Amino acid sequence: MNKIEIERAHQRVEPHVHRTPVLTNSFLNELIGASLYFKAENFQKVGAFKARGAINALSQLDKSIEHVATHSSGNHAQALAWGAKKLGMKATIVMPKNSPQVKVDAVKGYGAEIVLCKPTLEARESTLQEVLAKTPGKFIPPYNHEHIICGAATAAKELLEDSKDIEAIIAPVGGGGLLSGTALSSKHFASSIKVYGAEPKMADDAQQSFRVGKLIPSVNPNTIADGLKTSLGEINFKVISKHVEDILTVTEDEIKEALFLILERMKIVVEPSSAVALAVVLKNKELFNNKKVGLILSGGNLDLTQLRLWKK
Amino acid sequence: MNKIEIERAHQRVEPHVHRTPVLTNSFLNELIGASLYFKAENFQKVGAFKARGAINALSQLDKSIEHVATHSSGNHAQALAWGAKKLGMKATIVMPKNSPQVKVDAVKGYGAEIVLCKPTLEARESTLQEVLAKTPGKFIPPYNHEHIICGAATAAKELLEDSKDIEAIIAPVGGGGLLSGTALSSKHFASSIKVYGAEPKMADDAQQSFRVGKLIPSVNPNTIADGLKTSLGEINFKVISKHVEDILTVTEDEIKEALFLILERMKIVVEPSSAVALAVVLKNKELFNNKKVGLILSGGNLDLTQLRLWKK
Repeated sequence: MNKIEIERAHQRVEPHVHRTPVLTNSFLNELIGASLYFKAENFQKVGAFKARGAINALSQLDKSIEHVATHSSGNHAQALAWGAKKLGMKATIVMPKNSPQVKVDAVKGYGAEIVLCKPTLEARESTLQEVLAKTPGKFIPPYNHEHIICGAATAAKELLEDSKDIEAIIAPVGGGGLLSGTALSSKHFASSIKVYGAEPKMADDAQQSFRVGKLIPSVNPNTIADGLKTSLGEINFKVISKHVEDILTVTEDEIKEALFLILERMKIVVEPSSAVALAVVLKNKELFNNKKVGLILSGGNLDLTQLRLWKK
Repeated sequence: MNKIEIERAHQRVEPHVHRTPVLTNSFLNELIGASLYFKAENFQKVGAFKARGAINALSQLDKSIEHVATHSSGNHAQALAWGAKKLGMKATIVMPKNSPQVKVDAVKGYGAEIVLCKPTLEARESTLQEVLAKTPGKFIPPYNHEHIICGAATAAKELLEDSKDIEAIIAPVGGGGLLSGTALSSKHFASSIKVYGAEPKMADDAQQSFRVGKLIPSVNPNTIADGLKTSLGEINFKVISKHVEDILTVTEDEIKEALFLILERMKIVVEPSSAVALAVVLKNKELFNNKKVGLILSGGNLDLTQLRLWKK
């Protein structure tokens, strides 16, 4: 995935997605002793960066394909449903039964068909095969695909264009679509930047894989950052191994603290996965001290009724 | 309060406050059948438009004054504390005991002294007199003052500058500082615009006063829109009587519905008082059909732990 591929992805996605703003906050800058630049993908179409990868993948499909399908616990589901509607295709989404209701409702709202399954990777994959056996079409994976990665990369590309001289950039890591895309854009468009992955300690398969040097899948991850429960993909892992400085983890309490700081101080709604990046900066102040730091706020699809339970 | 006074107020406040963005949302536009322009004062300093009035009033005080005081249930308290710190003055804030903790904490954070009192207007006023007897200084009222109104007016002035051809503008009304300021800016800078006040049915003293033609104070208002419990001020009432088209009320359920639409669809944090303006538009779709409508989102100081209780 070279520079030109990401530039072409950007040309493909730009007509469909928002160029989301880059936000700053003087309170958080003082608290941390750094200059933070938040790429607000919570304001993106479908409320998450996933819109970028979905539209990039869908718009490269053969014209003969009328049906697309995927399995996803959340934002990729919405993104594919939205993208398919936008391009006049039919979409079927296999979702685990324990997906947040707000995300299931949103997928329905974009007119996709939903098939619920058990919350295991095996059940997701077998159900998807059944769907595609019944109605032929194309599987669009959530992260382990070059078109998805190049689409995700456009968020960091815009951040680097809009905020000059960023020295470090942090993206949350679940399946690794956003982090691998962020790493590629950083390499191609601002090669001296250090890229960090931010991960919940309760779902630290990416950190383990990164440090050991081989893919170690996630086992029963249990974190409020529901978007980061998935295991790292193979293509994503290759990119991350090569171009990421380190993957740093945070506890559930640290994620909650960062989430409330964003909600209460920045006055924007983000989902816990987005707060993981800020939590990493809060925990590693000395690493980012006096630096210009970019953070990707990956999405804003938060179940607001959970906040009471998470507040200390 | 003529055009020049508001322009001078704008010159006074501009170096200290944010020029907050004007937001749009395609989902809400479709839902309502109108083009909505949200002036996002939830992103303002201290999280509310009140910063504008406070700094406009404080910066016109005689240089000899070193201490300012007020009584406020919330955002004016923060605004005065913040403004006093900014201009190097000491501030004492009389707050009713039942003020949201998030607002009490914020006032403390700006370094002001807090004196708690019973949650009645009488207790607030007598406690304030005691404070000023002990430490001489100047009382800065929350809304019933021309400098406060001219400061508040600058929010609508910016909205009208940044979004051309707005046909109607809606502001929530509590004490009436924001609504009277909005009405004055609309008259002076875009005279053909119709201005509406948005009020909770459970605190409808402004609607009653407006329709009867004399000030009727609020009696035991009980609404989640805590910023709108105060009774309309005299100066505010005069301006509103002359320049406002109508005052429209909404129920608590309608406020909650609008609040969740803003949080979930716009991905921004606003307090219930801000949602009252959108609730009025949702309830009166025919009045705003196909129009360009401005809404002032007055603030973002929301007690997030309450959301679970408010969600249907």
